[in-house]
Amino acid sequence: MPVERALPSPEARDLLDLVRDLTGKEVAPRAAADESAGRFPREVFTTLGRAGLLGLPYPEEYGGAAQPYEVYLQVIEELAAGWLAVGLGLSVHTLSCFPVAAYGTAEQRERLLPDMLGGELLGAYCLSEPHSGSDAAALTTRAVADGGGYAVDGVKAWITHGGAADFYTLMARTSDDGARGISCFHVPASTPGLSFGAPEKKMGMRSSPTAQVRFDGARLAPEALVGAEGEGFRIAMAALDGGRLGIAACAVGVAQAAFDAASSYARERRQFGARIVDFQGLSFILADMATQIAAARALYLDAARARDAGRPYGTQAAMAKLFATDVCMKVTIDAVQVLGGYGYVEDFPVERYMREAKVLQIVEGTNQVQRLVIGRAVARG
Amino acid sequence: MPVERALPSPEARDLLDLVRDLTGKEVAPRAAADESAGRFPREVFTTLGRAGLLGLPYPEEYGGAAQPYEVYLQVIEELAAGWLAVGLGLSVHTLSCFPVAAYGTAEQRERLLPDMLGGELLGAYCLSEPHSGSDAAALTTRAVADGGGYAVDGVKAWITHGGAADFYTLMARTSDDGARGISCFHVPASTPGLSFGAPEKKMGMRSSPTAQVRFDGARLAPEALVGAEGEGFRIAMAALDGGRLGIAACAVGVAQAAFDAASSYARERRQFGARIVDFQGLSFILADMATQIAAARALYLDAARARDAGRPYGTQAAMAKLFATDVCMKVTIDAVQVLGGYGYVEDFPVERYMREAKVLQIVEGTNQVQRLVIGRAVARG
Amino acid sequence: MPVERALPSPEARDLLDLVRDLTGKEVAPRAAADESAGRFPREVFTTLGRAGLLGLPYPEEYGGAAQPYEVYLQVIEELAAGWLAVGLGLSVHTLSCFPVAAYGTAEQRERLLPDMLGGELLGAYCLSEPHSGSDAAALTTRAVADGGGYAVDGVKAWITHGGAADFYTLMARTSDDGARGISCFHVPASTPGLSFGAPEKKMGMRSSPTAQVRFDGARLAPEALVGAEGEGFRIAMAALDGGRLGIAACAVGVAQAAFDAASSYARERRQFGARIVDFQGLSFILADMATQIAAARALYLDAARARDAGRPYGTQAAMAKLFATDVCMKVTIDAVQVLGGYGYVEDFPVERYMREAKVLQIVEGTNQVQRLVIGRAVARG
Amino acid sequence: MPVERALPSPEARDLLDLVRDLTGKEVAPRAAADESAGRFPREVFTTLGRAGLLGLPYPEEYGGAAQPYEVYLQVIEELAAGWLAVGLGLSVHTLSCFPVAAYGTAEQRERLLPDMLGGELLGAYCLSEPHSGSDAAALTTRAVADGGGYAVDGVKAWITHGGAADFYTLMARTSDDGARGISCFHVPASTPGLSFGAPEKKMGMRSSPTAQVRFDGARLAPEALVGAEGEGFRIAMAALDGGRLGIAACAVGVAQAAFDAASSYARERRQFGARIVDFQGLSFILADMATQIAAARALYLDAARARDAGRPYGTQAAMAKLFATDVCMKVTIDAVQVLGGYGYVEDFPVERYMREAKVLQIVEGTNQVQRLVIGRAVARG
Repeated sequence: MPVERALPSPEARDLLDLVRDLTGKEVAPRAAADESAGRFPREVFTTLGRAGLLGLPYPEEYGGAAQPYEVYLQVIEELAAGWLAVGLGLSVHTLSCFPVAAYGTAEQRERLLPDMLGGELLGAYCLSEPHSGSDAAALTTRAVADGGGYAVDGVKAWITHGGAADFYTLMARTSDDGARGISCFHVPASTPGLSFGAPEKKMGMRSSPTAQVRFDGARLAPEALVGAEGEGFRIAMAALDGGRLGIAACAVGVAQAAFDAASSYARERRQFGARIVDFQGLSFILADMATQIAAARALYLDAARARDAGRPYGTQAAMAKLFATDVCMKVTIDAVQVLGGYGYVEDFPVERYMREAKVLQIVEGTNQVQRLVIGRAVARG
Repeated sequence: MPVERALPSPEARDLLDLVRDLTGKEVAPRAAADESAGRFPREVFTTLGRAGLLGLPYPEEYGGAAQPYEVYLQVIEELAAGWLAVGLGLSVHTLSCFPVAAYGTAEQRERLLPDMLGGELLGAYCLSEPHSGSDAAALTTRAVADGGGYAVDGVKAWITHGGAADFYTLMARTSDDGARGISCFHVPASTPGLSFGAPEKKMGMRSSPTAQVRFDGARLAPEALVGAEGEGFRIAMAALDGGRLGIAACAVGVAQAAFDAASSYARERRQFGARIVDFQGLSFILADMATQIAAARALYLDAARARDAGRPYGTQAAMAKLFATDVCMKVTIDAVQVLGGYGYVEDFPVERYMREAKVLQIVEGTNQVQRLVIGRAVARG
Repeated sequence: MPVERALPSPEARDLLDLVRDLTGKEVAPRAAADESAGRFPREVFTTLGRAGLLGLPYPEEYGGAAQPYEVYLQVIEELAAGWLAVGLGLSVHTLSCFPVAAYGTAEQRERLLPDMLGGELLGAYCLSEPHSGSDAAALTTRAVADGGGYAVDGVKAWITHGGAADFYTLMARTSDDGARGISCFHVPASTPGLSFGAPEKKMGMRSSPTAQVRFDGARLAPEALVGAEGEGFRIAMAALDGGRLGIAACAVGVAQAAFDAASSYARERRQFGARIVDFQGLSFILADMATQIAAARALYLDAARARDAGRPYGTQAAMAKLFATDVCMKVTIDAVQVLGGYGYVEDFPVERYMREAKVLQIVEGTNQVQRLVIGRAVARG
Repeated sequence: MPVERALPSPEARDLLDLVRDLTGKEVAPRAAADESAGRFPREVFTTLGRAGLLGLPYPEEYGGAAQPYEVYLQVIEELAAGWLAVGLGLSVHTLSCFPVAAYGTAEQRERLLPDMLGGELLGAYCLSEPHSGSDAAALTTRAVADGGGYAVDGVKAWITHGGAADFYTLMARTSDDGARGISCFHVPASTPGLSFGAPEKKMGMRSSPTAQVRFDGARLAPEALVGAEGEGFRIAMAALDGGRLGIAACAVGVAQAAFDAASSYARERRQFGARIVDFQGLSFILADMATQIAAARALYLDAARARDAGRPYGTQAAMAKLFATDVCMKVTIDAVQVLGGYGYVEDFPVERYMREAKVLQIVEGTNQVQRLVIGRAVARG
C-alpha cells in the first residue's frame, strides 16, 4: 500500500520524488549505525542544504524554496520515515530560522538568512529550562542590557542540536513582566560565555544531541535582538505553531515506516500454514494502523493548508501534533507486536521506531500542553 | 469553535450556507418530536428535493447538481448534525440512485433520473438479507427470467426506507455463480408481489423506517435490469464505496452536534465555583473530542477528494467509515458524560446522538467488514 | 463460559444459587416489558425482601443477613444481570439504610431497621441537587431547627425511587459551615410538605423512576436526625463508598449479561460458511470482553474483601466503580456490534444493556469524581 | 499509596517482607548498571536460591517452599518491580523446573530437584524455534532414539538464559504425529553438541541473555526424557499456564514501579506555581494508572487462587497475562509522559520500564496467542 500523496503542483511532486530518493540512498541506510553509536550526522544536513531542503517554507530571495507548508511537511515526513533524527532536525532547524525570517529586520534577514537556509549554518531553539517546561512563560534566563548589548545568564534544557548547532535562537527575560518580559535573540555558537552540557542519554534519537545550553555572562551585540524587546513570547508561540506541525509530520513518517515494516513482515512470515497477514487477528491490527496513519496525515495536511491559506491554525496545529504523536506511539508498539520477538531486537528497525515515537509525545509541548491549548479554544467557544 | 470548512468554490460555500440555514430552520427543530413518535418525515425529503439537494453528485442534465463528493458529503454532514434520519436518508437515497446513474442505459437515465434526483421519488437500497449481512455475496433472493421479464422471490432485511420509499434498488441472484451470479434491478414501490415487514424497533433513528422488503413472485419488466446480468455485485460494491463515505459524513455530523452540545453545556455549568469547562478533567475530554472529530472530517474529505480526482478510493472509503463511526461512538458517549445526569435524559439531545451513533458502526458494512476490506489491501501490499 | 465464583462459605453458595434461580424466574423475564412500559416493579422488591435479600450486609438482630460485602455484591451482580433496575434498586436501598444502621441510635435501629431490611419499606437516597452534583458539599437544601424538630426547604434531584420509595435518606444543610454544616435525616414518604417531580425520561432504566424530591416546609421530628448535626457529609461519603461498590457490581452484571448474549449469538450465527465465533476478528473482541469483565469482577471483589476485613477501602471502591462501569460501557457497545443489526433492535436485550451501561458511569459520583477521589490519594502519597 | 497485599498467612507476609527488603538492597540498586552493560547477574540468582526463593511453589521434600501460587507470584511481582531480568528470570526458572516436578519419575525428582530448587542450577525453557513461535506444535527440532538414548538436532530460538543456564528443558519431536509427536527432555548445559548463539540485541532486558540454543547431534541419556514420549506438548502447555501467571506478575511489578516513580515525581515537580500532581490533567492519568494496576493485580491473583484451589485456570491465566501486560505497556508509556523529558533519559528508570514492558506482551505466547486461547474457551461456550 504505497502512500498516495495529493500534492498541489508538479514541482512539489518532483520535490517529493527527490526527497524519497535521497532518503532511500543517503539517509535511511546510515540510521541504524549512527543511532547505535550516538553519532550526529552533521554532513547529512549539509547534503540537505545543498539539495535546497533547509529553507523550504521561506522566501526565495533569501535562499528559501517558497514551498507551502503542505509540501514542506511532507518532505519532513519522508525524511523522518528514513531517520527521525534527520526529519526532526530539519523541523527544529526550520523553527530556529522562523523568528529572523518572520520578525527580523531587513538587515538581519539579508545578513543571516542565506547561510541559515542554505545549509551552512544549522540551528537550535532555546526555550525550555530545567524548571520551566510546560510553563514556558516562567523562564528565568536573563538578558541584561549592558553597554550597548546584552549579558545573558541562565541555563536552557532539552535543546536539540545543543552543542552541535551553529546558531541558537534564544528566548530570554529582559524584564520581570511575565510573558511580556521575554525577548528573542539570535546567538552564534561562537559567542563567548556559551557552553554546553553533556548529551542526554536518551531512550531513542541517540544520534541527535540533546543538551543543556548554558549562558554564563554571554555577551550579545544589540543586533542579536530579533523583533522588539518583550515580543519574544509571542514569537516563540508563533514559532511553536509551525514546529508542532513539523512534529506531527515526523510522527506520521515514523508511524508509516513502522507500518511498512510490519506489513512487509506479515506478508512473508508464515504460521499455522498461512501468511500471518491472512489471519484476521493480525490483519485487523494492520488495518487499524493504516487507518490511524491516514487520519493523522489528513489532519496535519488540513492544518497545513489552513496556514498556507493564511487562516488561524494554532488550535489545528495542536490537534495535529497531539493526534499524530499518539497514533505514532500506538502504531509503533503494534508494529513490534506484529513482528513478535523479531520486533524486539535490533535486527529490524521497528524497536527503534518505538523508542523514537515516545519523544514525539513530549517535544514542542507535551501532549498535555496541546490539550491545554485546544481546551482553551473550546472554553472560548 | 465553529467548524471551518475548506470548500472548493464560492458556489459550494453558498450551498453549505443554504444547507446550514435549512437544517437549522426545517430539519433540526422537528427531530426530537418525530424521533419520539417514530414518524418518518417524508415531507422533509420533498423540501430537500425542491432545494436541489437530492441529486447533488449527479450530472446536471438529469437534474443533479454536479457537485464533487467533497461538497456533497459536507452537505450530508450538516444535515446529519441536525437529524441523522435525514442525513443518512439522503445518503441512502443517493446510493440507491447510483446504479442507474453510473450503469444505466441512456434510456433508463432519461426516464428515471429526473424524478429520482428531483425529489419526487425517494429510494431504498436492497442488499442485505436475514442470513447474509457481512457476507453479501451469499444472498439468496432470486430473479428468474420469465416471459420477457423477471419473477423475484426472497426477503431483504434491514432496508432503510423500507415501506416508505418510492423505488427499491435491488440486488438479486440470476444465477448460482456466487458473486458473479448477482444482478441489479430498479423496482418501483408499486410492483405487485412487493410487501414490507413491520418497522424494526430500533434503539435510535426511530423516525427512519427500517424494514424487511419481501418479494413474493414480484414481476419485473426486462428494463428493470440495471447494467448487465451478473454485474450486480460489482455495482453493489461500487455503490457501497460511495455509501460508506456518506456514513462517514453522517458520523462526523452527529459527533459534531454532540460536541457542540457538550461544550456549550460545559461553558455554562458551574461546579466548585467555576465553569466546568475550566477544569482540566473535563477540558481534556473536550479537547480529545474536538481532535478526533477534526481527524475524522479530514479523513473523509481526503477520501472524497481522491474520488473526485478519479483515483481509486475504496480502501480510503472503508478507512473513513471505520474511523469516523468509531469516533462518533466515543464522542457521543463522552458528550453524555460531560452533561452527567442531564446527558442521560431526553431534555437534551445528546442521549439521542449516542443512540444514533451506534447504528453507524453497523450499516453499509459493519466496522469489522471495513477492516476486512482494508486488511485485504494490506495483504496485497 | 459460566462464571466461576469463589465464595467464602457454603451458605454463600446456596444464597447465590437461590438468587440466580430467582433472577431467572422472577426478575429477568419481566424486564423487557416493564422497561418498555416504564413500569416500576415494586412487587419484585417485596419478593426480594421476603427472600431476605433487602438487608444482606446488615446485622441479623435487625433482620439483616450479616453477609460480607464479598457475597452481597455478587448478589447485586446476579440481579443486575437479569434487570439493572432491580440490581441497582437493591444497591440504592442498601445505601439508604446505611446511615441508620451505622450511625443511628439503638432506638432508631430498633424502630426503623426491621421494616427497612425486611422488605416492607423501600428506600431512596437524597444527596444531589440541580446545582450540586459532583460538588456535593455545595448543597443548599436547608433543615432549620424549629419548635423541637426541623423545617426543610429545597429540591433534591436525580433521586432513584423518587416518588416510589417509602422513606428518603436526606442530606440537608443545618448550618452554613460548608461540608461540616450538613446533617442526615430519615424522612418517611408520608411527611407533609414532601412532593415529587415527574419521572425523568431517561435513555435506559426506564422502569426505575428517577425524579426530583421537593421539600416545601416539610416538618421533621427531632428523632429524624441520624447521627449528630454536622455529621451528614461524613455519613454521606461513607455511604457512598459502599454504594460505589454496588454500582461496580451492577456494571459487572450488565456486562456479563451482554457478553453472554453476544457469545451465544456468535456461536450460532454463521457467515462465510462458518460460525462467526470462529473468526478471529470477532473471537478476539469476545476474548477482550471476557477478560475485561473478569478483571472488573476481581477488582470489586478485592475492594469488598478489604471492607470486609475492616481495612480502608474508599480509594479501592472508587477504582472499582470507575473501572467496572467503563468496562460495562465498552463491553455493551461491543456486544451490540457482535450482533450487528440484530443488536440494534429490541428483539434482543443487548441494546437495552448498552442504554443501561451509560447511567452507571454517571451515578454515585461520575467517573470524573472517582478519578478525583483516586487522584487525591495519589497526591497524598 | 503503598501496595496493600492480602496474604493468606503470616508466613507469607514475612516472606514478602523479606523479598521487599532483599529487592531494595540487593536487586534494584544494581539494575541500571547491569542493564546498561548487558551483564547477566548470575550471582543474584544464587542469592535468591540461598534465600529459598528459587523453588517457591514446589514441595518441601525436594527443597521447595510449598507456597501457593498466590504468594509465589507476589514474590515475582516484587522482584520484577526492582529488576525485571530477575523477576522474569525466576519465573522462567520455575517454569523450567515444572516438567520434572510435575511429570518426572520419583528418581528424576530426587536426583534433579534439590539442586534445581536450591539455587545451584539455573534453568532455561526451550520451546520456540525460528519458524515456530505462536504455532508451537509445528516445531521441528528432532530427538531420534539412538542406542539407548536420543540424538537431538535443531535450533531453539528466543531462549531466556540461553548460554547462561545450567540446564535446558527441551521440547523436541520424537515422531511426526503433530502435537502428539513432541516429547520433553531435561538437558544439562554440559551436554556435547549443545551450543549457543550470540545474545540477541534487545530493546530492553539487556542484562538477561536471550539466545538461540543449537542442538547438533547432541546426545541425551534415556533418563533425560521427562514424562512419556509424545506427552511433551501437553506438558509444555501445562507449564505455560503457570508461566503466563509469572509474566502477569512481572507486568504488574514493572507497572507498579513505573507508577511509583511517576507519582513521586508528580508530587515534587512544580509548574504554574503548583505541584503537577494537583492538576487534573496529570492527576487523572495517575488515577487511571493506579486503577489499571490494581485491576491487573486482582486478576492474576484471582487466577492464582483458582490454581491453588485445584480448579482449571488456563483461560484465566491467559486473561491475566493479556490484561496485565497490556496494562504494563500503557502504564509505562504514561509514566514516561508524566516525567516529560526527564522520563525519556536514563537518569530516571522509567524509560527502562517502558522498554521492558514491551517484551512482556510477546513472551510466553504473544497477546494474540492469549486471545486465541480465550477465544477458544468462548467458542466452546
